[in-house]
Amino acid sequence: MANYPAQVSIREVGPRDGLQNESVWVPTEQKIELINALANTGLKRIEAVSFVHPKAIPQMRDAAEVVAGIERAPGVSYSAIVPNAAGANRAVAAGMDEVEIFMSASESHNRKNVRMAVAESLGAAQQVARILGEAKMPFDAVISTAFGCPYEGDVPVERVMWVAEKLLELSPKPVRITLGDTTGMANPRLVDRIVGEFQDKFPDVTLSLHFHNTRGSGLANVLAGLQRGVTYFDSSLGGLGGCPYAPGATGNITTEDLVNMLHDMGIQTGIDLEKLLECARLAQSFVGHELPSQVLKAGPRTRLTPFH
Amino acid sequence: MANYPAQVSIREVGPRDGLQNESVWVPTEQKIELINALANTGLKRIEAVSFVHPKAIPQMRDAAEVVAGIERAPGVSYSAIVPNAAGANRAVAAGMDEVEIFMSASESHNRKNVRMAVAESLGAAQQVARILGEAKMPFDAVISTAFGCPYEGDVPVERVMWVAEKLLELSPKPVRITLGDTTGMANPRLVDRIVGEFQDKFPDVTLSLHFHNTRGSGLANVLAGLQRGVTYFDSSLGGLGGCPYAPGATGNITTEDLVNMLHDMGIQTGIDLEKLLECARLAQSFVGHELPSQVLKAGPRTRLTPFH
Repeated sequence: MANYPAQVSIREVGPRDGLQNESVWVPTEQKIELINALANTGLKRIEAVSFVHPKAIPQMRDAAEVVAGIERAPGVSYSAIVPNAAGANRAVAAGMDEVEIFMSASESHNRKNVRMAVAESLGAAQQVARILGEAKMPFDAVISTAFGCPYEGDVPVERVMWVAEKLLELSPKPVRITLGDTTGMANPRLVDRIVGEFQDKFPDVTLSLHFHNTRGSGLANVLAGLQRGVTYFDSSLGGLGGCPYAPGATGNITTEDLVNMLHDMGIQTGIDLEKLLECARLAQSFVGHELPSQVLKAGPRTRLTPFH
Repeated sequence: MANYPAQVSIREVGPRDGLQNESVWVPTEQKIELINALANTGLKRIEAVSFVHPKAIPQMRDAAEVVAGIERAPGVSYSAIVPNAAGANRAVAAGMDEVEIFMSASESHNRKNVRMAVAESLGAAQQVARILGEAKMPFDAVISTAFGCPYEGDVPVERVMWVAEKLLELSPKPVRITLGDTTGMANPRLVDRIVGEFQDKFPDVTLSLHFHNTRGSGLANVLAGLQRGVTYFDSSLGGLGGCPYAPGATGNITTEDLVNMLHDMGIQTGIDLEKLLECARLAQSFVGHELPSQVLKAGPRTRLTPFH
């Protein structure tokens, strides 16, 4: 019988990873409304925006206005993802609580994503770390394509560990490493293996997992992570977002499906599922199409059918 | 680190559990085409039809014609689900390889489903078993709402074990017991608990699991079953079907998502995933709307994106 943690911390990435993979433009005031509603569900970590070049990701061109417009709920950490020093400076100016930096484990994905070799990205990451360090702003280092690369297929575990090692040599150090399954190529056995290796090699480092449900096994991968004692997970309300490599495919795992499964398993999240479902409904109305969330359609397990 | 079985046997229930929950009428020749295509994928068990009253489930009114029309591929077991003696006689007349009988663990679901108390269903099951026994036709006994009831919520584990015990007293005995999560109320911890109890109580009985993905945790529930050594699972190609209790919600777990996850984990199914995807595409064209399958949209993990 597997052991499970008593509590899990979810980072809601819908406003960023979700929205930036939606084709419609969501106006600034709707983004603000959504983030404010999310902060009222019990969620303690919200990835609100990314500070990237507006030409690269037009959906995030209003990032500074969004951050300026939200009500900063006490106890909630609002983060932004940044690709470079310019982004880090904007995150500092916006007064984020935390920042995510990222690079890919595989060379080809990194090159496609940020037009740099991984070694160059590591150099740029040191610049970013310095800027954040001076501002005393903690950061999480995300390793994309940690469970597979859409161009290269399998990514050697040693490669993932090497990138993690290099990221942990940054000064200051990231507060956490996130292993990202950017295009939904993980499976539970691979999660078990990579997380196990990570924990053996870096026993004192906080590990977070970022799964996509591209091939339907997202929550099975979460289960494998939970069984290894991981308590930090990313997810997106409503299953907002998609996959740039497969038109029509889903993106991040769905927050309410994750929360529903965890609560049913007796694992606490601190999140009010009904309030979260309201947020998912709001997000659905903003993007104007049906979201892949299951619990949004079926309701939580506890919502019984009347018998007559 | 969890242990996993080397091989899993999948029963494809799309032509029955899938189609009977679709609102469109699929013509007899299309049903036959689909079942014949499925038998060519490496699948060894196909639930082809149900022999129920045509007024109860009009989509299955052509069951005998479907069975008469299919090519019986060698090595493939074609089964039918039957609710009563009349259905059993029709299954025998059709020359099925195997039959599924069913009843619910919860009284209210059983009453809604077959208008009988569970005790009455057990009596009827003995009649059915006698008919099948005389025809030397093996049968699987499915316990619906084993992980929760849409009317009653939690179903006591003792209740599920009691129904299983009664079904195992039938003469002849079922070749297998299937625990059904009829409306997607299972979670991995509950699967672990109920399967564990079952295996303790009935160590010599073959157990099969039938999950629905209504709340998104279908493959996580499969993982919990695999970790308990279960090797028999039901699923539906394309995620064909739906949930009568939640309009718009998905039904059975999707066969290609299950096969993709199992193969990625190194667990054999004997199924050709590309051929299976062709069947799912065929099913999608027959029902005329997008199916919830993930791998149908994203392709298997091994289908890489060209790098230019």
